[in-house]
Amino acid sequence: MTFLPASPPTSYHNGSYQTGMMQGAQLLALVGPGLRLVETKMKGVDSDVFAPLANAFLDLIGSGGKRLRPALALMAAKVDGATPTDMDSATVVALAAAVEMLHTATLVHDDVIDSALLRRGAPTLNAIWNGGSTVLAGDYMFGSAALFSAQTQNLQVIRLFSDTLKIIVDGELRQLRDRYNYEQEKSAYYQRIYAKTASLFCAATQGAAILAGFADADVTRLRDYGYYFGMAFQIMDDVLDFTSNAATLGKPAGSDLLQGTLTLPFFYYLRQHPNPADVITHLEEQRSRADAEGAAIWRSTVAGLVGELQASTAAAEARQEALDFLTQAKAALAPFPMSPYKESMLGLCDFALQRNY
Amino acid sequence: MTFLPASPPTSYHNGSYQTGMMQGAQLLALVGPGLRLVETKMKGVDSDVFAPLANAFLDLIGSGGKRLRPALALMAAKVDGATPTDMDSATVVALAAAVEMLHTATLVHDDVIDSALLRRGAPTLNAIWNGGSTVLAGDYMFGSAALFSAQTQNLQVIRLFSDTLKIIVDGELRQLRDRYNYEQEKSAYYQRIYAKTASLFCAATQGAAILAGFADADVTRLRDYGYYFGMAFQIMDDVLDFTSNAATLGKPAGSDLLQGTLTLPFFYYLRQHPNPADVITHLEEQRSRADAEGAAIWRSTVAGLVGELQASTAAAEARQEALDFLTQAKAALAPFPMSPYKESMLGLCDFALQRNY
Repeated sequence: MTFLPASPPTSYHNGSYQTGMMQGAQLLALVGPGLRLVETKMKGVDSDVFAPLANAFLDLIGSGGKRLRPALALMAAKVDGATPTDMDSATVVALAAAVEMLHTATLVHDDVIDSALLRRGAPTLNAIWNGGSTVLAGDYMFGSAALFSAQTQNLQVIRLFSDTLKIIVDGELRQLRDRYNYEQEKSAYYQRIYAKTASLFCAATQGAAILAGFADADVTRLRDYGYYFGMAFQIMDDVLDFTSNAATLGKPAGSDLLQGTLTLPFFYYLRQHPNPADVITHLEEQRSRADAEGAAIWRSTVAGLVGELQASTAAAEARQEALDFLTQAKAALAPFPMSPYKESMLGLCDFALQRNY
Repeated sequence: MTFLPASPPTSYHNGSYQTGMMQGAQLLALVGPGLRLVETKMKGVDSDVFAPLANAFLDLIGSGGKRLRPALALMAAKVDGATPTDMDSATVVALAAAVEMLHTATLVHDDVIDSALLRRGAPTLNAIWNGGSTVLAGDYMFGSAALFSAQTQNLQVIRLFSDTLKIIVDGELRQLRDRYNYEQEKSAYYQRIYAKTASLFCAATQGAAILAGFADADVTRLRDYGYYFGMAFQIMDDVLDFTSNAATLGKPAGSDLLQGTLTLPFFYYLRQHPNPADVITHLEEQRSRADAEGAAIWRSTVAGLVGELQASTAAAEARQEALDFLTQAKAALAPFPMSPYKESMLGLCDFALQRNY
């Protein structure tokens, strides 16, 4: 599925909005022209030495075109129904590009970190490109993101953006620190997914609302939408990591657990288990054995646990929690009049729960 | 030598300025109070998970206290002689902290890149800390630098800052790409040192001038000073890499050449050589041999070339070029009335040529 259709789907063309589930492509169609401006801005790398590298990363990471964060910025800026729909403000496009470029930069560096730490077998960006230039490509993308954020010409938004960058990186170091720590509190999980995912969705919707000149209460509502949507989006990502398979996901089921990252389904699994302490002891022992005897032991331990988790209700419980967050995301939009943009933002909430990749 | 004395030296206390060479500590004494504000700002890491890591890096990299870039920002803001000397504007302090934090972030990532590429024997930051967290610590510092730059509350300065970040990273990738390329033009060297060093000195002095509200012509003069000073500073760094020894420098003489980075003394050496093509062929052959037979061959090849270069006039010619840049840096300040700040900025030009570490 692509998220960037050549033209808006007919359901919008004829002015009637579907009230049920819409496809991802349809939902983003409304902001298709804006997304193409964002894409052009992101691809306009002004360095001959970085252009091939940066554009390769943008293609690899943007493949499938899941430009969800910039799409939400573009939608949020017009959700009041009072903004002309036929044009996108250059400052909102700059924010949308900043948000997506920052997201891409963190993924590029994640990849350096993962291969440095985990020596995964799968070919990563970092394996294709040289590790040093991958670090620099990520840095260049941070620089581009900072420049795009400066182009919003709004000090409050620039400040929000640099705060968000710090929150994201802070969350990533927490995740790194907490790997393989099976004693951690569930609250650490929420802190992590806010930092690494929801904070950037917040920055997209809140920043767009500020740039659109909305009243403070509406800015807060859109920030709330971004927060709840982002939390749900990451939970669903974490659910799919257990319930999906290698063919759909591009990585084996349970890859988070394999890397020692604990996610919501695991916490639910542990809570249901008659002897959670035994599970933890078993994992810690197998982890030590794997250090001495090789990674195959760890892979088979995780595969066993993934099987047990899939047979339990843990994933369904986590999914229910995502649904609760999405209900709150929808509620945050309640005061806005119905419009194609609001309709799309509501539809994305349903879509977040439906997607299977 | 420390650059941060507890109190200003007596030569300023009694109001008489030395016209000859001054020590580094004396030159920076005038902005000592401002530099302490910068230091406090940089050390105020607001993340419990990053604080130990970031502060360790700041200590390691800032050891010796060579806070030259923020010092120049603080001086430039007052060089017109009209600004009260007893206080530092919060926005100039924010800019100075942003510049130094950006500098530190790039050094932290340089270290990741170097150890990834070169597996040097020396213990690097990256060897002390885990590689993944080092990448993230650098990212966090980029985020802090962006936040400090936002705190200048000046869109022009924020824009200048994000442009400079991109220029620096671009220069680093060029340097990485051009390693071991002995056919490269000398012009590539100037492009590199502008990008990796002079651009940030420019941002410091130009940004400070903008924040101080100077007229456009004075902003340009201070930018020029930063440019010429920065070019000279990097050339002297590159000269010292050949003429200094391991004890003073903390790394063996010729370390740039060992890493394949060509600097100005090498270009002069090549120009003087009766058969430059033979030198290049020899280096390329030894480099290939080292790939097959081990790094010791390369180290001894470089040591031989360093000996020849030291016996030639190459370093002296490069040093003369640094002096020419410093003469232009001083000339850029000519229109400003004499003041303690101008005196220090002129004195730093002499110091840049004198330093032996």
